[in-house]
Amino acid sequence: MRIITREEIDAVLPKVDLIAEIEQGFIAYSRGQAVVPPVGELVLEDPPGDVHIKYGYIKGDDYYVIKVASGFYENPVNNLLPSSNGLMLMFNQQTGALVAVLLDEGSLTDIRTAVAGAIAAKCLAPSAVTRIGIVGSGIQARLQLQYLAPVTECRQVLVWGRNQASLDDYAAEMAAHGFEVATTTDARDVMATCNLIVTTTPAEKAILRAANLRRGIHVTAVGSDTPSKQEVATAILGRADLVVADSIVQCLERGEIHKALAAKKLNRTDIVELGSIIAGDAAGRTTDQQVTVADLTGVAVQDIQIAKAVYAAVVAAQ
Amino acid sequence: MRIITREEIDAVLPKVDLIAEIEQGFIAYSRGQAVVPPVGELVLEDPPGDVHIKYGYIKGDDYYVIKVASGFYENPVNNLLPSSNGLMLMFNQQTGALVAVLLDEGSLTDIRTAVAGAIAAKCLAPSAVTRIGIVGSGIQARLQLQYLAPVTECRQVLVWGRNQASLDDYAAEMAAHGFEVATTTDARDVMATCNLIVTTTPAEKAILRAANLRRGIHVTAVGSDTPSKQEVATAILGRADLVVADSIVQCLERGEIHKALAAKKLNRTDIVELGSIIAGDAAGRTTDQQVTVADLTGVAVQDIQIAKAVYAAVVAAQ
Repeated sequence: MRIITREEIDAVLPKVDLIAEIEQGFIAYSRGQAVVPPVGELVLEDPPGDVHIKYGYIKGDDYYVIKVASGFYENPVNNLLPSSNGLMLMFNQQTGALVAVLLDEGSLTDIRTAVAGAIAAKCLAPSAVTRIGIVGSGIQARLQLQYLAPVTECRQVLVWGRNQASLDDYAAEMAAHGFEVATTTDARDVMATCNLIVTTTPAEKAILRAANLRRGIHVTAVGSDTPSKQEVATAILGRADLVVADSIVQCLERGEIHKALAAKKLNRTDIVELGSIIAGDAAGRTTDQQVTVADLTGVAVQDIQIAKAVYAAVVAAQ
Repeated sequence: MRIITREEIDAVLPKVDLIAEIEQGFIAYSRGQAVVPPVGELVLEDPPGDVHIKYGYIKGDDYYVIKVASGFYENPVNNLLPSSNGLMLMFNQQTGALVAVLLDEGSLTDIRTAVAGAIAAKCLAPSAVTRIGIVGSGIQARLQLQYLAPVTECRQVLVWGRNQASLDDYAAEMAAHGFEVATTTDARDVMATCNLIVTTTPAEKAILRAANLRRGIHVTAVGSDTPSKQEVATAILGRADLVVADSIVQCLERGEIHKALAAKKLNRTDIVELGSIIAGDAAGRTTDQQVTVADLTGVAVQDIQIAKAVYAAVVAAQ
């Protein structure tokens, strides 16, 4: 059994082709080759925190994975700790023996989420991305943009947030990654000028409004992963040509799709799964004029794939 | 953050008053002071294995705990590994930070289960236990008997199993703990001669039959922790004066009570929770002539309490 530290994980990550690994996970999931039970959830109240347990395995694979990820959103104010935390556990599918503890402190959850965003953009963004819109300016807003770099040539970015100082920090930090970042505190600017938009906040009320919807855009909604969170107006999903879920069954219970179904702006049968599009089993975007929305609530296959890939890279690096 | 090894755990366990700690857990649970979401379950097929994830916290406490326990019942044959495995994770309730990883390899799950059996016997066994009946001869059969030692003066034991060699091993090993153990391969002998019976097998068909039911006995059913497992005939629960669950909500879905409810031998309103009896909020056994059954499916409060106690003892031992 192997304890893998945050430092070891950070050291091997650049060597791993995460997009390919996680695409394979989505394909296995959408083809019914993965066993992924419902997400376990633990809610803390004072201070508020939520803990998600995602777990499962790909049939015939060597390992099963249990991932714990928490969000304690008052941490940065209360104790200067990051809001995200967690770890991943990898077990032998033949014996139940613990194979590895990945002490990633939530970083692999953040990264596999960003990688899924890159995969959604690769499949669904218009052929010419002219400006990337990022909603939110936290860790996930940073990672989404960084992981978009290999899948789009666009380096023009507009970031939305409520706090100008945070936006300025974001712009400066992303400039170092080669992006030219303008800032706004009016979400309508994002809808008006960007054609690849990624939402990354824990909002519980829509930030992107349908009144501002243009043709030829793609929105990836990443922040909303519980039944109560929402970043995108249900009417945007209602008016989209294509609504994609990372997991249909999970999106019935949580995230933007859950909200749009509840508001009767969307039918369950209109939802296509990301893995089906990657595999070529279902059509993705067919014209640049379409409006597409991907709702990513985070599926255990992402955790399974990133844990396996990091473990293999750590073992190989020895 | 602290990684606690199996050796460290084994070294401190004798110093911890587990009965008192776990009784407090049951009381908190039955008084609604614990948050314990539904059990997470992952089923492996080839070879068969089941993985349970139990988690939760006591309100106002310092930690929340996530426990993983697996049973791969072909391990002893396939690869000489024990069938049980697992670990416990302890997190800070204020921040989500990982506080400790307890690499107990499933041993703390086995022990907290045995401690619950001792607590059930303490509350529910007739005042004079004349002979202890143990159904099964595996790890849990050993631990149940060992942990009964402080709560009863009885040292006369009859163990039931299908394999005589395993029974002989059991008898010899338990003799070293001060018990005088006879063996049988006919479960009717257990019903005919024992008045404190503990069942510890992963059977899926009742081993204890109602035809042999005498007055003045107590049965603790420990093995049945899934919807399909069963060790005790539903008619025994139907004819019992008192049926006790470690968790009523959990026993509606799994274990002996689940089976007896499905067979309409029992009403939901007749079930009393163990923590309510320990707290004195509900009556336990009132006469020595009663038949009582305790169905223990394993509740996260046991894991929470044993993890906290072991962690505190390890820190104190430094």
